[in-house]
Amino acid sequence: MGAHHPPQPRATIPDGFLDRLGHLVGDRLQLGEAIRRQHGQSEAHFEAVLPDAVVFARSTEEVAAVVRLCVAAEVPIVPFGAGTSIEGNAIPVRGGLSLDLTGMDAIVAVNAEDFDCTVEAGVRREQLNEHLRDMGLFFPIDPGANATIGGMAATRASGTNAVRYGTMREAALSLTVVTPDGRIVRTARRARKSAAGYDLTRLMIGSEGTLGIITEVTLRLHGIPEMISAAVCSFSSLKGAVDTVVQSIQIGVPLARVEILDAMQMRAVNRWSKLDYPEETTLFFEFHGSPRSVEEQVELVREISGLNGGGEFRWSNRPEERSRLWKARHEAYYAAVNLRPGAVGWATDVCVPISRLAECITETRADLDGASLPATILGHVGDGNFHVIFSIDPDAPEEMAEVEALNDRLVARALAMDGTCTGEHGIGLGKKQALIDELGDAVDMMRLIKRALDPKDLFNPGKIFAL
Amino acid sequence: MGAHHPPQPRATIPDGFLDRLGHLVGDRLQLGEAIRRQHGQSEAHFEAVLPDAVVFARSTEEVAAVVRLCVAAEVPIVPFGAGTSIEGNAIPVRGGLSLDLTGMDAIVAVNAEDFDCTVEAGVRREQLNEHLRDMGLFFPIDPGANATIGGMAATRASGTNAVRYGTMREAALSLTVVTPDGRIVRTARRARKSAAGYDLTRLMIGSEGTLGIITEVTLRLHGIPEMISAAVCSFSSLKGAVDTVVQSIQIGVPLARVEILDAMQMRAVNRWSKLDYPEETTLFFEFHGSPRSVEEQVELVREISGLNGGGEFRWSNRPEERSRLWKARHEAYYAAVNLRPGAVGWATDVCVPISRLAECITETRADLDGASLPATILGHVGDGNFHVIFSIDPDAPEEMAEVEALNDRLVARALAMDGTCTGEHGIGLGKKQALIDELGDAVDMMRLIKRALDPKDLFNPGKIFAL
Repeated sequence: MGAHHPPQPRATIPDGFLDRLGHLVGDRLQLGEAIRRQHGQSEAHFEAVLPDAVVFARSTEEVAAVVRLCVAAEVPIVPFGAGTSIEGNAIPVRGGLSLDLTGMDAIVAVNAEDFDCTVEAGVRREQLNEHLRDMGLFFPIDPGANATIGGMAATRASGTNAVRYGTMREAALSLTVVTPDGRIVRTARRARKSAAGYDLTRLMIGSEGTLGIITEVTLRLHGIPEMISAAVCSFSSLKGAVDTVVQSIQIGVPLARVEILDAMQMRAVNRWSKLDYPEETTLFFEFHGSPRSVEEQVELVREISGLNGGGEFRWSNRPEERSRLWKARHEAYYAAVNLRPGAVGWATDVCVPISRLAECITETRADLDGASLPATILGHVGDGNFHVIFSIDPDAPEEMAEVEALNDRLVARALAMDGTCTGEHGIGLGKKQALIDELGDAVDMMRLIKRALDPKDLFNPGKIFAL
Repeated sequence: MGAHHPPQPRATIPDGFLDRLGHLVGDRLQLGEAIRRQHGQSEAHFEAVLPDAVVFARSTEEVAAVVRLCVAAEVPIVPFGAGTSIEGNAIPVRGGLSLDLTGMDAIVAVNAEDFDCTVEAGVRREQLNEHLRDMGLFFPIDPGANATIGGMAATRASGTNAVRYGTMREAALSLTVVTPDGRIVRTARRARKSAAGYDLTRLMIGSEGTLGIITEVTLRLHGIPEMISAAVCSFSSLKGAVDTVVQSIQIGVPLARVEILDAMQMRAVNRWSKLDYPEETTLFFEFHGSPRSVEEQVELVREISGLNGGGEFRWSNRPEERSRLWKARHEAYYAAVNLRPGAVGWATDVCVPISRLAECITETRADLDGASLPATILGHVGDGNFHVIFSIDPDAPEEMAEVEALNDRLVARALAMDGTCTGEHGIGLGKKQALIDELGDAVDMMRLIKRALDPKDLFNPGKIFAL
């Protein structure tokens, strides 16, 4: 099974190309089917398309050399990290080369006094945080999966901490990028801010490998808060949960994390993670700050929660309890998919102005309740961003069409509320029409930029828009 | 007098163009020399170049119509706001049309629950904050001058609040832009975050009118803090002042503003604003939060300050005292220029990683102390960003060459520390070589984007880079 992204013509691999590639990278060129399959599929519902070859890159200079070979031979090149993207972002739909960057996993520098670090693209976020812990620092962007920093930059990832710490857009100070003409550029210096020319850093963040291959990232870091406190609270109504968050933000509580899970998602979480939370709309909170500030935040939120029909706060103040709570949240995707044994997941996300969030989730829940298959809602309520996770029977192809229709209605609903078709998953293969519905002529500007920087359309072709 | 930016060939205005323009906009087409002069000069040291005509625009649709006329006639078009930019950013070096957007000053919508608003490009930041005050909201970006929001977006402005609230890069959610092909595009929806395609919002922010004309801006807003407290503190050494800031940030104090002024700048401020602060290196602080949080912040910073040779904290907790303090800070430019009667100002800025800031300022001060003319240092120390303001005798042209050399050394010093040639003023006319020194081949990527979006080079030509 797999979603019906229209098949693209496969690129021709010219004679001698693989030999030249092998000469360059030795046995880090891999042609076996198992490895090609691993780089041709995704965790989501998209049909796999195998690359002709996989190269495991070791350095920026090597990536530049590989790019020059590919461009000369007109072979498509698609960067690959942890493979955890949701919209088929790394599937090589025209074949060609999958460039695996996970071997570039060096933490190049940590500048503790400047609260920044520079890492190679293949570094995983958990690896980075482990490295930083003893310095009292952390990197806050947390999309759930243990993604690579390069992949997170390429897809403009965000996640549970974005309400307080921003997304990859705010987290990246500078990138090293290999451009389609095979040059190595650094998009910015290490200064906190700059007004020096076009913001190439932000242009590359979220460009999904279509404009350049990110090989190094300089990241803003944060001090580990003196105190971290987490709590879970159930609500008798969805509106009460959303209003609690809106009102807390309005009076200035600097929530570090606030996640909403609907009743069906809570059932899935309880089953998957062996927990016993009430199976109602639930908020997961995390508070960061000095002990005095956390105490103040908690008092305020508890009071607001009580006024909005919230129940008891269940606390997790010890690190191991907190880890258990957030592990359950991070596994919510697998929990939801496994509401049906043997099912396949389809995750989608939208983001709306927070004033419309309760309405958008309520209407979406009503739409999902009419579906023939299970679907859960969970999201980063402080940003107005939420996900729907469908659990699809792989042997019932008609379910794919049903989910497509539900997803189309979800996107249309979000756009009608001046929201976006994706808060954090990206466009990839799945939301190309949604992007046009959302931004119209602005997509033509994107095409002009793509054609200018990658005139042969070799960098992750077929993604974001049809050229 | 005026800096030696190489003269550019003036564009030819075809017969009938001005008639067609007049037909479109009526008496909002202005050809008189006084108005053209006002739109051809800047507050800074650059030589004036007069536009052939000035149009006072009224709507986005009208801007699009004017752009289509200009492009068909190959007449350059340069957007103009408050005229407070520092690097000659709005000087029409090839002549053509100066498009004045100050008449587009409508506050289109305030969405209080979403903490955002949409304004036309000509709205001034003080006007906006006056409008927002009764709703308990404020727009934090404060470059000092009462600039237009459109101009602030076009130059990626920041200023005194950036350490806590970010710059225009973070403040803008979406833009309405008229492109060089005369289309009106909206770069994003009103959602807090999005992963939908290339980040055109951030590409336009800081593009200085070279890629499109920003006509509307949707901005993030913030709640007015429950408590605001401001203080001034002198230090026996520059390093002690900088270390106070670095250490405060390191332990997590969310400073809202922290400005450094050197001894000569304090002398200028005392004279200009009739104050009596000690004429030593000084920090201006502002703390935002709940009363409890502000109290906690202040205790911590006062303690750190004492350990670093800081003197007494002079408090300004009442709004009128605070206004007086920040008015003195905002007038620092005029205060510095007027250290010599009849002088002309040249302001420059760089931004370095904060670990290098004390060293960068100290070396710069030593270099300035050898100069034949007065120059002060002040800056946004929390970001690593500082300014030098030269006070130049307009009848002594040799001083211009001296300042150019001092400025070149300042930029080279910042770049050697992995900093940027401008933290917030932009490139404009003054820092085109510095941009190349800073980013090398990345400037070629900028040129490719410029040529793709504005193939005839009519949108603010001659700025940021030579095409």
